[in-house]
Amino acid sequence: MSNLPLDPSLLEERIGYSFKNKELLTLALTHTSYVNEVRAHGNDTESNERLEFLGDSVLSVVVSNYLYNNFDEFLEGDMTKVRAEVVCEKALAKYASEISLGDYLFLGKGEDKNNGRANKSITSDAFEALLAALYLDAGENGFDVASELVLPFVKAEIEVIRSRGNVEDYKTRLQTLVQQAGNEHLEYVVTNESGPAHNKLFTVEARLNSNVIGVGEGRSKRKAEQNAAYEALVLFGDEK
Amino acid sequence: MSNLPLDPSLLEERIGYSFKNKELLTLALTHTSYVNEVRAHGNDTESNERLEFLGDSVLSVVVSNYLYNNFDEFLEGDMTKVRAEVVCEKALAKYASEISLGDYLFLGKGEDKNNGRANKSITSDAFEALLAALYLDAGENGFDVASELVLPFVKAEIEVIRSRGNVEDYKTRLQTLVQQAGNEHLEYVVTNESGPAHNKLFTVEARLNSNVIGVGEGRSKRKAEQNAAYEALVLFGDEK
Repeated sequence: MSNLPLDPSLLEERIGYSFKNKELLTLALTHTSYVNEVRAHGNDTESNERLEFLGDSVLSVVVSNYLYNNFDEFLEGDMTKVRAEVVCEKALAKYASEISLGDYLFLGKGEDKNNGRANKSITSDAFEALLAALYLDAGENGFDVASELVLPFVKAEIEVIRSRGNVEDYKTRLQTLVQQAGNEHLEYVVTNESGPAHNKLFTVEARLNSNVIGVGEGRSKRKAEQNAAYEALVLFGDEK
Repeated sequence: MSNLPLDPSLLEERIGYSFKNKELLTLALTHTSYVNEVRAHGNDTESNERLEFLGDSVLSVVVSNYLYNNFDEFLEGDMTKVRAEVVCEKALAKYASEISLGDYLFLGKGEDKNNGRANKSITSDAFEALLAALYLDAGENGFDVASELVLPFVKAEIEVIRSRGNVEDYKTRLQTLVQQAGNEHLEYVVTNESGPAHNKLFTVEARLNSNVIGVGEGRSKRKAEQNAAYEALVLFGDEK
């Protein structure tokens, strides 16, 4: 016989968080197939579906906040694309597998035999429920605690997406264009900073083999670099 | 000539929040049509589109958290339906109009003449951007400050939805059934409470003209009432 599910306390150790309200953790781990089974025996319990609803939003705000604050060069459309990829079922199932979440789930017997612990729909939903449980249990630190669990996974996923070059930004496009042209050296140089500390304006030159091919301004270096790259793309006729 | 846009400080008074970083408020109020116009004059500024991206998630978590904690009787499907209604463009444009947000927007001249301040797409997006600006500006109180602006509007909207009876729950269905049958008196009575304070189990009877027609248990009174109503619907053959 299987020794699953594992004790929830082992999951707490694994994620480095001890729940004040253990019931909340149990709830996050309870799949609806388990609820139906115990209900048939006259007991009343709840599934993790309501937590999953909340967890979906918690995940969204954690990821959006991270993208907004760390990727100045991403326009809204880029951020929307990246967010969609890092919160999709496939990605969430991957995060769930990183903490072996399937091994801790309370499943109905049929679902368990049917390999439910490896079912991406079940584990991804449970991962969202777990995020919500952390969010609620940690009170005013809820956002931070949920972030601590999921952001390392999200960051790794974003790197994969960026390495595939799926997120089009002006710097990446200019780099590609320059590489196609052969052995040329592209660099970005900050030539001016003005304004007070909280509201600086940067001026950046894009230089190709030391020739200035674009100048951009922006409230961050990355934004200024993007604008310089944009101007260079216009110069090369690659952008209207 | 129009005296619009109004000074952003008037909006701060209106919503009862003074921004530490006024640039963030200005950014939230800046429509892309304005950016295109000043860019044509050689100036670099940003639109509220990135903030809108973040605000969409902030709104989602504020609403989800409220629904999760205040509507025990809503199943996941009900909450999803309600959330979708209260965060749709039409609803957001209504919230925006409650604070006359259109009057504060920086619009391009063409968009301004084109009645852009009353354009639901523009004002609903700006409302989301404003929520994100509040969220970021208030730091660790971000969630609370954003909630304070939007929750009163959301609560009113939820009441409208519930009064239309669009959210089907067992109690509402049982009430409808009973009313169809004529002059009958339906009530819910808590007959037992057990368990520790943080994890109570309630037992509730649904009574029709003092006859018990359903008994339900639950971790909250509302949940127990829903279960009692469900049992009564089964009794009446309205639910399998």
